[in-house]
Amino acid sequence: MKTFPECIPCFIKQVLDAAWALSLSDEETRIALMEALEAARNADWNLPAPLTGRDMHGITARQQGTPDPWAAHKRLHTQTALDLLPRLQRMVDASPDPFAAAVQFAVAGNAIDLGVTSAHDPDVDRAFAAALQRPLNPDGLEDLRRSVEEARAVLFLADNAGEIVFDIPLLERIGPSKLTVVVRGRPILNDATMDDAEQSGLTRRFTVIDNGSDIPGTWLPDCSPSFRAAFSAADLIISKGQGNFETLSEVQAPVIFVFLVKCAVVARITGEPVGTAIVKRAATP
Amino acid sequence: MKTFPECIPCFIKQVLDAAWALSLSDEETRIALMEALEAARNADWNLPAPLTGRDMHGITARQQGTPDPWAAHKRLHTQTALDLLPRLQRMVDASPDPFAAAVQFAVAGNAIDLGVTSAHDPDVDRAFAAALQRPLNPDGLEDLRRSVEEARAVLFLADNAGEIVFDIPLLERIGPSKLTVVVRGRPILNDATMDDAEQSGLTRRFTVIDNGSDIPGTWLPDCSPSFRAAFSAADLIISKGQGNFETLSEVQAPVIFVFLVKCAVVARITGEPVGTAIVKRAATP
Repeated sequence: MKTFPECIPCFIKQVLDAAWALSLSDEETRIALMEALEAARNADWNLPAPLTGRDMHGITARQQGTPDPWAAHKRLHTQTALDLLPRLQRMVDASPDPFAAAVQFAVAGNAIDLGVTSAHDPDVDRAFAAALQRPLNPDGLEDLRRSVEEARAVLFLADNAGEIVFDIPLLERIGPSKLTVVVRGRPILNDATMDDAEQSGLTRRFTVIDNGSDIPGTWLPDCSPSFRAAFSAADLIISKGQGNFETLSEVQAPVIFVFLVKCAVVARITGEPVGTAIVKRAATP
Repeated sequence: MKTFPECIPCFIKQVLDAAWALSLSDEETRIALMEALEAARNADWNLPAPLTGRDMHGITARQQGTPDPWAAHKRLHTQTALDLLPRLQRMVDASPDPFAAAVQFAVAGNAIDLGVTSAHDPDVDRAFAAALQRPLNPDGLEDLRRSVEEARAVLFLADNAGEIVFDIPLLERIGPSKLTVVVRGRPILNDATMDDAEQSGLTRRFTVIDNGSDIPGTWLPDCSPSFRAAFSAADLIISKGQGNFETLSEVQAPVIFVFLVKCAVVARITGEPVGTAIVKRAATP
């Protein structure tokens, strides 16, 4: 999907939020905002928003003189999620429909604030309970269940660090024999990279590859030839998160999107309100 | 007060909201946003935000080829407020402390959405009830009451069209003999101008002057010499609205600010949460 007018103020706000999260000084924040305004002016509105997102958030990285200013945040979120995983696994196993529960937690990973200081925070209990209550579109869920059963090669496009730990119950139900998990090729925001997949224990249990790109989404023209080959060979691609939806919404491929609607633009495109869990196959022409 | 980092994304969002309110086309919206990004890059962060606000919102005006793209909105809001005025007057008169109730409605004028289609909308009842329940700082209120009684020349710096109608019960209690109402010198956003004061019936009842400026606030270096003379001569200046606070917060003058905290930056500066009614004298050195 293309970039919408609402994306422009949202970009600038995201850079400010990033500046705060990274505790930039006032002067660093000012410079980051000035560069973000320039990047926004140069945005190509015919292309998906995550492409401008990369340019925006590269600024803070360059400014901090590190390729991965979010590394510490991501480590914290991964560790919190790993602390929560056994409880989450028990809840999925105890569910009347463990596959559906696994999908619900994979969607919820997008919404649970892993900036909490401890896995024993009462907010986590509320977030877990809410995850299991969030309705899934039954047709989308059955399509996903049947497609996972029938597929021989499943590509799972991961989203953020921390969140990928919450994908584990679903990844286990797909099974390591036919599954390849995909992370970003280079650090961008809190998106999961190979380092995060390792820290999350994913690389020990599943085949994990990277897509060669540092766009916070999956924009095929920017991805490596080897990833594009895997993308073409897969008979099911599960695309997690809104950034992957924004960049793949018009692709001709066997993609099922799994994400939470996070902004008014995507709400309009999907026809579902902000906060809705989407499990939906990409439209074919 | 100076411009803060948070003002930057807020400016851009305001221009987008303005584009929507004015039903600009997609291409006009894109151009307005591009110019807003440029104006934001040129902002002087050492000066108050409303100065950049003028540059931002001049864009939509130039684009629409009219000095006052908000004229129709302002007329609608003024008419709705005039339809509501008799009910509001009765509520003030019936209050145990009519002066306090008049101040509460003057503050609430800032928060009541006059985009409602009718004065009989149930939202209006709720907003009126909320206005009378919003607590006022007792020291600020008593300072204002005493200062109004003792003053010989009161300058009332008005804020928006529509809102100024809700100021009428307070203006009446100050009394036309010692009161001068001040509006903006030229149209900017929905700020009240002489036209709006006329349509609101203010010019028939009170002395109304303009400040010669089209900044959505009161920035003395941009105001006319005649306004600055009136400002110096007044022994009480009642400054309505957040824009006037932002531009006058550091002035050395007998100013009492009356406004609703509308954003996180002003919340930090005032030490009061968003939504708080402020009735507070300008700090003197």
